[in-house]
Amino acid sequence: MHARKVTAIAYPNIALVKYWGNRDHTLRLPSNDSLSFNLGDLRTTTTVEIDPSLSHDEVTLDGRTIGGAAYERVVHHLDRIVDSVCATQEVNGRSRTRMRVTSINTFPMGVGIASSASGFAALTLATCTVLGMKPSEAELSSLARLGSGSACRSIPGGFVSWHDSFAITIAPAQHWNLMDVIAIISNEHKTVSSTEGHALAETSPLQAARITDTSRRYELCRQAIMNCDFAALAEVVEQDALMMHAVAMTSQPSIIYWASTTLNILSAVRELRESGVPVTFTIDAGPNVHCICEQHALKQVKQMLWQMSGVIDVIQSGVGGPASVIAQSHGSHDDTQQVTPFHISPKDRV
Amino acid sequence: MHARKVTAIAYPNIALVKYWGNRDHTLRLPSNDSLSFNLGDLRTTTTVEIDPSLSHDEVTLDGRTIGGAAYERVVHHLDRIVDSVCATQEVNGRSRTRMRVTSINTFPMGVGIASSASGFAALTLATCTVLGMKPSEAELSSLARLGSGSACRSIPGGFVSWHDSFAITIAPAQHWNLMDVIAIISNEHKTVSSTEGHALAETSPLQAARITDTSRRYELCRQAIMNCDFAALAEVVEQDALMMHAVAMTSQPSIIYWASTTLNILSAVRELRESGVPVTFTIDAGPNVHCICEQHALKQVKQMLWQMSGVIDVIQSGVGGPASVIAQSHGSHDDTQQVTPFHISPKDRV
Repeated sequence: MHARKVTAIAYPNIALVKYWGNRDHTLRLPSNDSLSFNLGDLRTTTTVEIDPSLSHDEVTLDGRTIGGAAYERVVHHLDRIVDSVCATQEVNGRSRTRMRVTSINTFPMGVGIASSASGFAALTLATCTVLGMKPSEAELSSLARLGSGSACRSIPGGFVSWHDSFAITIAPAQHWNLMDVIAIISNEHKTVSSTEGHALAETSPLQAARITDTSRRYELCRQAIMNCDFAALAEVVEQDALMMHAVAMTSQPSIIYWASTTLNILSAVRELRESGVPVTFTIDAGPNVHCICEQHALKQVKQMLWQMSGVIDVIQSGVGGPASVIAQSHGSHDDTQQVTPFHISPKDRV
Repeated sequence: MHARKVTAIAYPNIALVKYWGNRDHTLRLPSNDSLSFNLGDLRTTTTVEIDPSLSHDEVTLDGRTIGGAAYERVVHHLDRIVDSVCATQEVNGRSRTRMRVTSINTFPMGVGIASSASGFAALTLATCTVLGMKPSEAELSSLARLGSGSACRSIPGGFVSWHDSFAITIAPAQHWNLMDVIAIISNEHKTVSSTEGHALAETSPLQAARITDTSRRYELCRQAIMNCDFAALAEVVEQDALMMHAVAMTSQPSIIYWASTTLNILSAVRELRESGVPVTFTIDAGPNVHCICEQHALKQVKQMLWQMSGVIDVIQSGVGGPASVIAQSHGSHDDTQQVTPFHISPKDRV
């Protein structure tokens, strides 16, 4: 008999070559390949429990029961996973047993760190496991992608490449001791969600050129990672981030994600690098700046950021491993059993 | 006998569809067509005097004798004009009589208002006139372009289109009562010159797409001008400016012209427009923001700008006319004669 309650963890990831725009919005198939690494010091822990006594799914996020669109998005993802089992197994998607989902982040939500990536990765792994599925890493990654595009990159560990429907590891976490030092910026303006941003990407006259150029940036970035070549990494990572924001700014309507402090940090990062410190920047769909640096530069980068006005918090993380199952219980009582983190062996990868 | 001393005026111009990048750097032939209007309340007044007693050209700018690269650029332009006369007239380019050039701006230099445009336009007109040439407007515009690309747009009056080698008026100054309200921004970082920016444009993976898309933006902007349609103008002017900066930011090396205040103004302009005020922004190769508005919105736009921290000055201008000769003297004595502003009749246009 398979577990009735499973807890999984996953890490958010930071893209070095960005995903921006879909070639299929419903399937969240990306317009271009991307590269990222997992942020191993930030974590989402998600428990999924099958409970026959529930009349509807329950979703709790950081201690708060959620409803509305965010709730529907989670329920839709549970349906999707159950439906995928349905074809070969006994679970009935139409009148399936309801689930209790409890998710906790070790990092603040809504500050522009992609909690949807780690959230949907952990949710996918916990749900598949509680349903007794034994998906390959590629299958897990594909399923997670349907919940949130970049979640597919939070399934494999370390440095990750997302090509088309799923993501794979290109180098393990210990390959290169990079740090992501995230400047959290006060921002008075409402931010457009990344889902909306993806949908608008194709309205920019620059998006096609960005996509066409991806293979060049991807290969430069992949080689910089494989060779641990920071100077090469910095050049391509900044150009890639600026190209994504170029597309967002020139979309119709235009989206400017940056706050004034964002620009001050870009300038400070470049100055610091010119003085010999291995640091570079990237920016996701919001005003925060991710300062990527080598471990030995950590102190200088943090000092620089804390000196900037407009920086309200600084969060750091090293490179993290894959999503993993950390606990399972097999009965209706709370006989939770700690397990060795679940790791998919390379042979399971497609 | 023709004049030995001629004074001409010209206005800087603000591009609504930007020139960025050259298909021929030496000839300053642009990568794409552009549209602008002259800033009639800002003015460069340039006097060129042929003086046989001089052993070398003398150039005075805002009361200061200049040397170095700026001096060489002016002398090279004088040589070029003299050489163009040489082919058909009596002046010898090799051992030509030297000239005294005196130029005064009514606006501060080096704050990002394109004084090279009005400067080279006035210099070209004054020099041609003192040499007894009778160039058409198109010939003047072409000659001015060789000194500084956008100077070709400061030769004709009003709303101006630059296609390939020279610029023409598409609507006179009085066609539409637009204002340019320029926020001068304090900027601690050195700025890359626009000449360097143009040279780097082709290193951006986005420049080709920007050029290809120009005909669409140009036509939208031209129609918005012809119809005095502010909403249509705002959309295309902002997108065009952001596309130029997208190219600059993603050039190799990358150029970020904006300061933090720049971004705050972009955001404030959009908010003001959403509240019903006809205002839009554009940005040249520097941190200053040109807020383009209809005359009746002037007060609100200025109020908004003066409230922003980081704004150190606000300069305004309406739409201006063509470059014109305002004084000529025919002898070696100072018998300067005021003349009706020189205006090239439409039949002289190519």
